Amino acid sequence: MTASEIRALFAVASRPEVVSLAGGMPNLAALPLDALSVEVADLVAREGQVALQYGSAQGVPALREQICEVMRLEGVNADPNDVVVTVGSQMALDLVTRIYCDPGDVVLAEGPSYVGALGSFAAYQARVVHVAMDADGLIPEALRDALRTLGAQGITPKFLYTIPNFHNPAGVTLAVERRSEVLEICAEYGVAVIEDNPYGLLGFSGRVYPALRSMDPGVVYLGSFSKTFASGLRVGWALVPPAVRDRLVLAAESATLCPPSFNQMLVSRYLEGHDWRSQIKTFTEVYRDRRDALLSALETYLPEGCSWNVPDGGFYVWLTVPEGVDTKAMLPRAVTARVAYASGTGFYADGLGSRQLRLSYCYPTPERITEGVRRLAAVLEAELDVMRTFGSPVRSASPPPAVGRGPQTPSPDTA
Amino acid sequence: MTASEIRALFAVASRPEVVSLAGGMPNLAALPLDALSVEVADLVAREGQVALQYGSAQGVPALREQICEVMRLEGVNADPNDVVVTVGSQMALDLVTRIYCDPGDVVLAEGPSYVGALGSFAAYQARVVHVAMDADGLIPEALRDALRTLGAQGITPKFLYTIPNFHNPAGVTLAVERRSEVLEICAEYGVAVIEDNPYGLLGFSGRVYPALRSMDPGVVYLGSFSKTFASGLRVGWALVPPAVRDRLVLAAESATLCPPSFNQMLVSRYLEGHDWRSQIKTFTEVYRDRRDALLSALETYLPEGCSWNVPDGGFYVWLTVPEGVDTKAMLPRAVTARVAYASGTGFYADGLGSRQLRLSYCYPTPERITEGVRRLAAVLEAELDVMRTFGSPVRSASPPPAVGRGPQTPSPDTA
Repeated sequence: MTASEIRALFAVASRPEVVSLAGGMPNLAALPLDALSVEVADLVAREGQVALQYGSAQGVPALREQICEVMRLEGVNADPNDVVVTVGSQMALDLVTRIYCDPGDVVLAEGPSYVGALGSFAAYQARVVHVAMDADGLIPEALRDALRTLGAQGITPKFLYTIPNFHNPAGVTLAVERRSEVLEICAEYGVAVIEDNPYGLLGFSGRVYPALRSMDPGVVYLGSFSKTFASGLRVGWALVPPAVRDRLVLAAESATLCPPSFNQMLVSRYLEGHDWRSQIKTFTEVYRDRRDALLSALETYLPEGCSWNVPDGGFYVWLTVPEGVDTKAMLPRAVTARVAYASGTGFYADGLGSRQLRLSYCYPTPERITEGVRRLAAVLEAELDVMRTFGSPVRSASPPPAVGRGPQTPSPDTA
Repeated sequence: MTASEIRALFAVASRPEVVSLAGGMPNLAALPLDALSVEVADLVAREGQVALQYGSAQGVPALREQICEVMRLEGVNADPNDVVVTVGSQMALDLVTRIYCDPGDVVLAEGPSYVGALGSFAAYQARVVHVAMDADGLIPEALRDALRTLGAQGITPKFLYTIPNFHNPAGVTLAVERRSEVLEICAEYGVAVIEDNPYGLLGFSGRVYPALRSMDPGVVYLGSFSKTFASGLRVGWALVPPAVRDRLVLAAESATLCPPSFNQMLVSRYLEGHDWRSQIKTFTEVYRDRRDALLSALETYLPEGCSWNVPDGGFYVWLTVPEGVDTKAMLPRAVTARVAYASGTGFYADGLGSRQLRLSYCYPTPERITEGVRRLAAVLEAELDVMRTFGSPVRSASPPPAVGRGPQTPSPDTA
C-alpha cells in the first residue's frame, strides 16, 4: 500500500543517522515558541471553558472570518458561512470525496498527484484518471483529451482534483494564463474542480498566484495552516459552494463531531496577535535556502541521465533517474546508505512513476541535504554500475532516454 | 436530519435565556485551568518542535501506553500497539463503520442509541436494527431474537454496537451477569462487538464495571477523554484486535493524516503530572449533584403519566411522556418556553421515540436544571390541556398507558 510505504519511510526518517528527503514535514525551527507559549497559556487561563469544550461542527466563527482574510491574499472573495474548518485539509479532502463519489466513480488528478489524495480516492473506491503536466502545470489539452476519451465511454468524472501551486510532488505551478482555460474546460464538461492549495503562500519570489476559486465561485478550495503555521495543530479548511456546505458540515459531524476548539482558538489568536505574514516570509526564506542547497547538490553529485524541476516555492523536487533504474526497488539500498526519499509509484494510481522519486527539502538543514544527495548519488552510481556489468536498458539498443543531466522542465509523462 | 436537529438545538442552547437540557456537553467548571495553563505553556516552550509537528497516524506512543493504564481500571489488558488514537471517539466510530460496513449491511444497536453512531451508520448506508433494553441494559433474549430473525433472512449483522455503561441516551447500565451472555450470543452468531464506553469511569457510586473487552479480546473498544478530561481537545481512541489495527491506521491516515500531536501530548502530560483519578471523582460529584437536582425536579413538577430512569452515572435521563404527546412536535413550544431537550426520534433509526425525550443534566447548574424542569412541566401541562379540550389519545378508549408518574425502569420498547 502506498500509504504504508510513506508510513514506513516516516519510521525510517526518525532514525537520526538517516537523511530523510522523504517526508513533507514543515520546518518549524523558525516558529516563535516563546511567544506561542505565552499565547496558549493565556488561552487556557482566560478562555479554557470554551477552548476545552465541544464547539460547532463547522468551526469557530472568528477563525472562519480570519480564514477568509488569508484567502483574500489569493484574490478569493469568500463568505465565512461557506468555510468549514477541518482536522487538517486532509479531512476536507476525505469528506469532499465522500460527498462527491460513489464506488466506481472516476476522478481526474494530475499525474503524479498527492499521495494522501490518492489514498482518500482509493478509500471511497473512486477510480483515478491522471492528466499530464509540464513545467507550467496541468496541460489544458491533456485535460480536454481525457474528458473527451471518458465522454466517449459515457463517463463524466465527478471532479478534477488539482494542486495548482508548487505541486506535490511535481513542484510545478499552473501558469496563470492556463487557469481560466482549465476552469472553462471543466465547466464545459460539467466537472467540479477541487483546488488543493496548502503551499500557495510559500512562493520564493513572494509572488502569490490567483486561486482558481478567485475566478470561479463554484470551485471547492482546500486550505491549511499546516505549512504556514503548525502542522501538529491539524487545522485546515474547505471553502465550498453553499449547495455543498450543509452536506459537508453533516459529513464533518459524522466524522469527528467537531474540530478541536482549542486548536482553532490558538490559530485564531496567532492570526490576530502575531505578524503571520512576516512569519510566512521567514518560512519561505528557510525553504528557499534549502531548495538552493538541494539543487546545487543535485548539479554537483548526480550522475548523467537524471533530470529534475526547479521549484519556485513549496517543498518538492521531482527527480527522474536514468532509464533502467527502479526507484522503488532501489529504496532499501538507499536507506541502507542512510538516505530516504519517496519513490514515484506512490504518487500514481496507475503504476507509473518507477523512474521517478520525490525529494523534500523542507525539513533537513542545507548541510544534511547536501550530504543526503551525495549518498543518493552514490547509490545511483552503484545501481548504474550493476546495470553496466550485467547489461541493462541503458546499454540496450533502445533509444536513449529523453532526459540528460541537470535541471529540466518535467516531461508530460513524468511530471 | 437528526444530526441537524441536534445542531439546531446546540444553537438554541447558546442563548443564555434558554435552559438547555439538550446537549451532552461535559461540565468543565471543575477543571484546574491555572495548572493546565502552566502545563501547556511548558509543552510549547520545551517540546513545541514535536508538539506542533505532524506525528504518526496511530498516535503518540507514550499516550497509547497511558491509555492502556486507563483501561486497566476496567479490567482491560491491552497492548499499546493495538491502540489507535483518534480525533474524539466519534472518529473511531466512523472509521470502524467504514472498515466493517458496505452499503446495505446490517448493524445492531440498542434502541434508542447514540445519535452520532446512527449518523455514522447512515453515512455508510448501513441499516440499523435496534435491540431492546430494560433497566439492566441490552436484553440478551432480544439480541438472540434479532439475530435469529435476521439469520432466517440470510443476514449476519456486521457488528453489535453497544454502550454498556450509563447509556446515551437511556441512562442504563448493562448488568454484569448479562455481559458474558451478550458476548456468547455474538460469538455464536459470528457478530463482532463494538463497545463504546465514554462514560464508564463516571459512575456515581465509584463502581467501575468490567469492560466487555476485558472478557473478550476480540471486542473493539472505543474510549474518550472528552468526558473525563476535556472534550475540546478531541482525543479519543480505539482498542482493536491486531487483525483490524492496520486497516484502522490506514483509514485514519486517509481521514486526517494523523491526530493532532499537540493535543495528545497535552493529554499525556495531564495524565502524567496531575491526579486525574481524583479529577474524575470531582467530575462525578458534580454530575451526581446535578442528577439529584434533575430527579428531584422531575418528581416535584412533572404531570401524571411520565416515567424516567434513575441513572447511576453518566449524563442522561430518558423520559417517557404521557400518551398522545409528541416530543418532537412539542420542542418548538418548549424552546419558546425557554427550555430545550433532545427529542426521542433522533435516537432511533426506525422512527420510534416520539413519546420519549432525553434530558442531560451534565452542564447546567442545579438551580437552572430545576428551573428548566419547571418550564418543561408547564409545557407538558399545556399540551395535556389542549389534548383534554380537543380530545386526545389520553381520553380515548385505548388502554391506559403502562407508565405512571415517577421514576421507573424503562420498558423494553422505549429505552
